[in-house]
Amino acid sequence: MTESLTAAYNQTKYKLGNHGKRDIRVLKEAFQDIEGQLESDRYGTGKIIEDFQAKMAALLGKEHAVFFPSGTMAQQIALRIWCDEQGFRKVAYHPLSHLEIHEEDGLKELHRIKTVLLADKSRVIGLEDVVNMEEGIACVLLELPQREIGGQLPSFETLWQISEYCRDKAIKLHLDGARLLEILPFYQRSAAEVCALFDSVYISLYKGIGGIAGAILAGDQAFIAKSKVWKRRHGGDLISLYPYIVSADYYYNLRSPKMGQYFEAAKELAALFNSCHGVSTLPLMPVSNMFHVHFHLAKEQAASVLAEVQQATGVGITSYLTEIDEHTCSCEISLGDLYAELPREVVIKAFRVLDEKMKQ
Amino acid sequence: MTESLTAAYNQTKYKLGNHGKRDIRVLKEAFQDIEGQLESDRYGTGKIIEDFQAKMAALLGKEHAVFFPSGTMAQQIALRIWCDEQGFRKVAYHPLSHLEIHEEDGLKELHRIKTVLLADKSRVIGLEDVVNMEEGIACVLLELPQREIGGQLPSFETLWQISEYCRDKAIKLHLDGARLLEILPFYQRSAAEVCALFDSVYISLYKGIGGIAGAILAGDQAFIAKSKVWKRRHGGDLISLYPYIVSADYYYNLRSPKMGQYFEAAKELAALFNSCHGVSTLPLMPVSNMFHVHFHLAKEQAASVLAEVQQATGVGITSYLTEIDEHTCSCEISLGDLYAELPREVVIKAFRVLDEKMKQ
Repeated sequence: MTESLTAAYNQTKYKLGNHGKRDIRVLKEAFQDIEGQLESDRYGTGKIIEDFQAKMAALLGKEHAVFFPSGTMAQQIALRIWCDEQGFRKVAYHPLSHLEIHEEDGLKELHRIKTVLLADKSRVIGLEDVVNMEEGIACVLLELPQREIGGQLPSFETLWQISEYCRDKAIKLHLDGARLLEILPFYQRSAAEVCALFDSVYISLYKGIGGIAGAILAGDQAFIAKSKVWKRRHGGDLISLYPYIVSADYYYNLRSPKMGQYFEAAKELAALFNSCHGVSTLPLMPVSNMFHVHFHLAKEQAASVLAEVQQATGVGITSYLTEIDEHTCSCEISLGDLYAELPREVVIKAFRVLDEKMKQ
Repeated sequence: MTESLTAAYNQTKYKLGNHGKRDIRVLKEAFQDIEGQLESDRYGTGKIIEDFQAKMAALLGKEHAVFFPSGTMAQQIALRIWCDEQGFRKVAYHPLSHLEIHEEDGLKELHRIKTVLLADKSRVIGLEDVVNMEEGIACVLLELPQREIGGQLPSFETLWQISEYCRDKAIKLHLDGARLLEILPFYQRSAAEVCALFDSVYISLYKGIGGIAGAILAGDQAFIAKSKVWKRRHGGDLISLYPYIVSADYYYNLRSPKMGQYFEAAKELAALFNSCHGVSTLPLMPVSNMFHVHFHLAKEQAASVLAEVQQATGVGITSYLTEIDEHTCSCEISLGDLYAELPREVVIKAFRVLDEKMKQ
């Protein structure tokens, strides 16, 4: 059934989420107007990488920024630098942090850093979680938005309070901002205003921005200098990173002005899901371009319903479902360029059909 | 003076070494005939990465191969896996190994692996170095050719003896084959025949092959499965590695048949250098596409001579010099596609001018 759900999704003419297929066209489009004579970066030096790093540092309001092949590498390194500086190897983050569940314990295996889990899996970290945490924490990592619970956010006031508390206690604060640009329309703040609350910041270049891969780590001069040494140790100081840099720059320019549009689309789409029988979104009201959809059916049943809806309407909702319990399953929706291409009447029809099928 | 040497080199019409500039054309050429619909790899899966890995495993005669963003990452991981399997964290390699001098001690800092240096800086590792090494070595790493001493090689018989000895003593043997394809014409062996002497093998995809970046690590099924876990821990399991994979495959197809041509060119060119007053190559007779050139002059003087020769003849010899002592400096030459574009009479004239200027 899951296979036919994937097949049904792949055959649809329209898709609710994302920017489009991750295929070679993503690279070809980014490079089509780039001069062939433009020289490669070379082990972290050269105009192509330095210009982009300076642009990202300015965006994030930090002294310096460095391009990394991945966020996994960038964030482990950030936490390691803060641990070394503080003199103890313990950090605190959410139980569903990317570092805790998607990185094969690199932080622990490579850096011997212990982790303390704040809050619980169902909610974001609040001020009280930070105030009540054990002693000897070198750095707190906050992920904004908290992806694995549908992309939830604390209020900006809570963020500010956590930042003040950490500064007061000399605890470093690191931002996992994989989707930082995506939350700015909700906070109604600039990237630099959010980043000012943090000692170091990571952003991803292939989520809302939709580049090929890559990440930026930003902070003060001394922090970034150390991060470059660790980047080499990790094997991330490649002779040429330009395929990622050129594409990141291209899609940043194209899509950073559209984050408000994606946010509005997410709110509209979540309302449509919530109007259907047996369907709800997490959060109910999105605070970024993403949310999770919960179908209150067993996974096999929901897969069957969604395959039918997608076949009948030509609208791609999801290619997969994750089981939550015997009676509930979910998928993630991230709004991108494709939603704007969807005719309004097609969307309305798709949700009418979904509502009907969910009732059966 | 060094700046004017670089400037003089950059202005020459011809170059002795390399394949050409590392600019965006390298990417554009590799992608020009690739269909836009071809799907990206995705976190190490998908046809684009799996096909190339299978091709490289077959080339190297190993069960499996995995694509890595860098050799730094691939080799640290190989040594870590063997250390874990053997139960002790100590490896042996040459004092000028890439891991010892170019990786900011990643092996020690990230993996807490101790290193024992074999042979001395002036020569390659021989059987007696391995036989006489201390106890408790999990793995010996051999770099073929030994780049930092001009690309020297042990005889194939010595390699075979070291391999037999290590197998007998249950010591793992890893090949740093950054330039493996480049030595096959000298050994008159297939890649698989050389790799059969080793438990694990790394090759680079941007040296003689001339791709954008990237590396292959090959070995048995269990070894490669573990390497993928470590690849994720290091932050090397990118969502998309295809910019490197597509270019590696393209330039592998283009240049792997030309390794014999590069080797012949290296021998011819080394003879020309050795015919000049105050110039010698290391090794005297190259065993791959590379060698070092020693100029028996102070670095400033040699830079001045070489800038003049390059300006006068339009032939690019080198853009830099490394000081060896007060009376000697050196550069590295790696033969690639460009040498074949050089008219014979231009080469001869360049070396006549070099010889004359070195006599003054």
